[in-house]
Amino acid sequence: MTGRDTWGAFAARMHEQSDLGGVLGLLGWDEQVICPPGGREARALQGATLAAIAHQRLVDPAYGEAIDAADALADLTVEQRAMLREARRQRDKATKLPEAFVRRLAEQRSRTNQAWEHARTTGAFADYRPALEELMRLKVEEADLLRGDGTRYDALLDEFEPGMRLERLQPLLADLRARLVPFAQRILDRPAPDVSVLERGFDPAAQEAFSLRVLRDLGFDFERGRQDRSTHPFTGGTAPTDIRLTTRIWEHWLPACLYASVHECGHGLYEQGHAESLWRSTVSAAPSLGLHESQSRLYENVIGRSLAFWEHYLPVAREHFPGQLDDVDALGMQRAVCRVARTPIRVESDEVTYNLHILLRFELEVDLIEQRVAVADLPEIWNARMAEYLGYAPKDDVEGVMQDVHWSEGYIGYFPTYTLGNLYSAGLLEAMRRDLDVDGLVRAGAFGAILAWLREQVHRHGAVTPGEELMREATGRDLGSDAFMAYLEERYGALYGL
Amino acid sequence: MTGRDTWGAFAARMHEQSDLGGVLGLLGWDEQVICPPGGREARALQGATLAAIAHQRLVDPAYGEAIDAADALADLTVEQRAMLREARRQRDKATKLPEAFVRRLAEQRSRTNQAWEHARTTGAFADYRPALEELMRLKVEEADLLRGDGTRYDALLDEFEPGMRLERLQPLLADLRARLVPFAQRILDRPAPDVSVLERGFDPAAQEAFSLRVLRDLGFDFERGRQDRSTHPFTGGTAPTDIRLTTRIWEHWLPACLYASVHECGHGLYEQGHAESLWRSTVSAAPSLGLHESQSRLYENVIGRSLAFWEHYLPVAREHFPGQLDDVDALGMQRAVCRVARTPIRVESDEVTYNLHILLRFELEVDLIEQRVAVADLPEIWNARMAEYLGYAPKDDVEGVMQDVHWSEGYIGYFPTYTLGNLYSAGLLEAMRRDLDVDGLVRAGAFGAILAWLREQVHRHGAVTPGEELMREATGRDLGSDAFMAYLEERYGALYGL
Repeated sequence: MTGRDTWGAFAARMHEQSDLGGVLGLLGWDEQVICPPGGREARALQGATLAAIAHQRLVDPAYGEAIDAADALADLTVEQRAMLREARRQRDKATKLPEAFVRRLAEQRSRTNQAWEHARTTGAFADYRPALEELMRLKVEEADLLRGDGTRYDALLDEFEPGMRLERLQPLLADLRARLVPFAQRILDRPAPDVSVLERGFDPAAQEAFSLRVLRDLGFDFERGRQDRSTHPFTGGTAPTDIRLTTRIWEHWLPACLYASVHECGHGLYEQGHAESLWRSTVSAAPSLGLHESQSRLYENVIGRSLAFWEHYLPVAREHFPGQLDDVDALGMQRAVCRVARTPIRVESDEVTYNLHILLRFELEVDLIEQRVAVADLPEIWNARMAEYLGYAPKDDVEGVMQDVHWSEGYIGYFPTYTLGNLYSAGLLEAMRRDLDVDGLVRAGAFGAILAWLREQVHRHGAVTPGEELMREATGRDLGSDAFMAYLEERYGALYGL
Repeated sequence: MTGRDTWGAFAARMHEQSDLGGVLGLLGWDEQVICPPGGREARALQGATLAAIAHQRLVDPAYGEAIDAADALADLTVEQRAMLREARRQRDKATKLPEAFVRRLAEQRSRTNQAWEHARTTGAFADYRPALEELMRLKVEEADLLRGDGTRYDALLDEFEPGMRLERLQPLLADLRARLVPFAQRILDRPAPDVSVLERGFDPAAQEAFSLRVLRDLGFDFERGRQDRSTHPFTGGTAPTDIRLTTRIWEHWLPACLYASVHECGHGLYEQGHAESLWRSTVSAAPSLGLHESQSRLYENVIGRSLAFWEHYLPVAREHFPGQLDDVDALGMQRAVCRVARTPIRVESDEVTYNLHILLRFELEVDLIEQRVAVADLPEIWNARMAEYLGYAPKDDVEGVMQDVHWSEGYIGYFPTYTLGNLYSAGLLEAMRRDLDVDGLVRAGAFGAILAWLREQVHRHGAVTPGEELMREATGRDLGSDAFMAYLEERYGALYGL
């Protein structure tokens, strides 16, 4: 075979995996947005069949040989080397888990998720506990199958943050907690701002139109994407040319639709921005979930909750909601969408306390998987720590330990990526400000320059460069909480007169 | 292996094929209804990858062995025997066509389709001819690869009407033509009815709501299906529990939406009606396209264009289109939606002349594939025969031989299934009337009894019984044109006072 044939043989298999991934993406999107209720069962079977085929083709020894042969070629580009590296990583992970184990895990996830849903109706943690215990036993087993020289938690974390290690993450997040708890406390001691302006009944169709207007301004390409509605907003799609955002509309809470749309738009802009040379490859992807999340949070929070954003969009919002926002100014809007509160529910919390919700979960899941804490003890520890970090005592386990779906789905190592996203987003703002007048651009609605900066620094690279390294290059900083704390202090210091 | 294991090994592969077929169905539906324009190219690649995998798994010798082993089991049910028969038929067809040939054919189809689209803008048949010639050479080659003891046309027809032979179809359709040409002539000599009532501007949202109301009445199950819009209406979906109709809305032509919806609903009711024991099998399908088409035409034409239909629905239509239909009665509506005319375009024609459009195409495609007519001679023969059958001379090839997409897609043997559908639908009406007061039920909007009859006689059987045999059992008649001509004479004799 010529070098070209050798690369072609590898690329054909890589493209196949990419295409199957795109199709699985469509199945998932359709299930949440389109599929009639009666079709769900057939859909689950179709998805399982396709996932099994994709897995078989991934672990096929011939794919491994094609990777090895291509890896032996001289003169590969940096992108090609990265494609091979990612292909090998995916295969290695997949081959470490026996098919029978994968099936057992999938079944237990499904059972645990059902138990979780049921327990949320009864309110009894005891209805959830046995299934979660069994799932955690399997997650320990999975970690032991996957782990190299790191800890069990490292093995699971690596799925979401390749290359990240607990020994680095733990001190980083402990430092963040040490700074954030007193900072949040100072704000929570101040009088709470009035948010009633956001609770007026806003016409759903007008909310949707407003969100679409904002997405268009931010640069989302509707020739290569769309926005629909779903119960839980998410970004799906099948390829960088077919990115599908979803949002939800709550008539009496204006931020629900707007910020879901802007958040998902951040994800969507990122995926639409991968260089065309990466499409259909293993690196037309995020190098880490934290990096992906940095894009959504940059748009939702850093930009979307800024004073400049409301200086630009309040007049636009008034056109969409005639007469409903005449008695508020831009600062009033910002104050309302930046309210900090002792909310028990993570997804309803704010930029300041959000990470405390995450830190609590991170600490608990590390102890769970390292078997230092038993599932049975979760509610008590959860509630005690909520009181310690946020000064709030959950009134039951539904607004306590049973509020999130993640653990019931077997996601361990996922939560910290949210906080990494926040840390990265603040680092990006700091770096962007060295090149651009960010506030001025937002105030003028000139989002093109911001997108161009992100495209160049982040989006186009896909997973060619590992996440932390790419962020170091883009921000000029090592990962840490300085930029994020500075960002919070600037915004919330002003808003709360600290 | 036990008998149960043997059946299970076959069933697993059959389920896999069914699931992949469902996923391919979703890809196709999404492409026409949802996919943003920029995503089409990625979608085509994803579809090709999935189709290639499905083909590989179908021709896998291990599937053949699993079929043989299951076939050797004693005590199989009629349904199980049928599943094996269909699995074998699908495999046999697939294994007869070498992969390289399938790829060549697919590429030429794509090229020919592009040439067709281009030629429709230039109006020059010469821009289409070379690509169509090459495609027809490949279709001859395909027929030779597939054919057993029948003709080339038989080999291609078998894809759509398993078991049908040219030697039976030709006299059948010649007989129909001999009866239909003079009958159509008599009607075309009468004054044309006024259709202006259908051309008033009808609010698109109200048209959609009206169509949904009718579908609900007819019995379409929206828990297991939905209706969306697309340029060309079709019935898609992923499983009998997830059937997706599409319609289109023309503001100034009321029948466009209504009858597209009702037509596709006929297809959809059929697919929703397959017995649950057939789901995920090779026989949760139509035994022939003609039979499938009989269901859509039964609803669209036999029921949907009846006087009883408008006696029931005119008041409902008036609610949806206030003030717009006050000056017309049920008979006036029926007259308008049953107008017979010398239209050059098949899809805009009527129940009476429709089959003449089909017969023309059937005769030409038989001669093409048997190489008695050259592609270059098509326009001339087409136009001459249009004049002979319909008394109309196409003003150019765009409203002549280039009007349909079928040949450019390589579909040879497809057109006659439309006429078979018409013949079957009239046979079903005749049989149904022996058991039910069909007109009375329609007039009362009591469609449940009609659906129940069709479920029992047709829908639930899927492809367990071959199409012609199933229709013989349901109608008590051999396939022929008597019932259809009697139906036309009854309806159009009354409307046109013959």
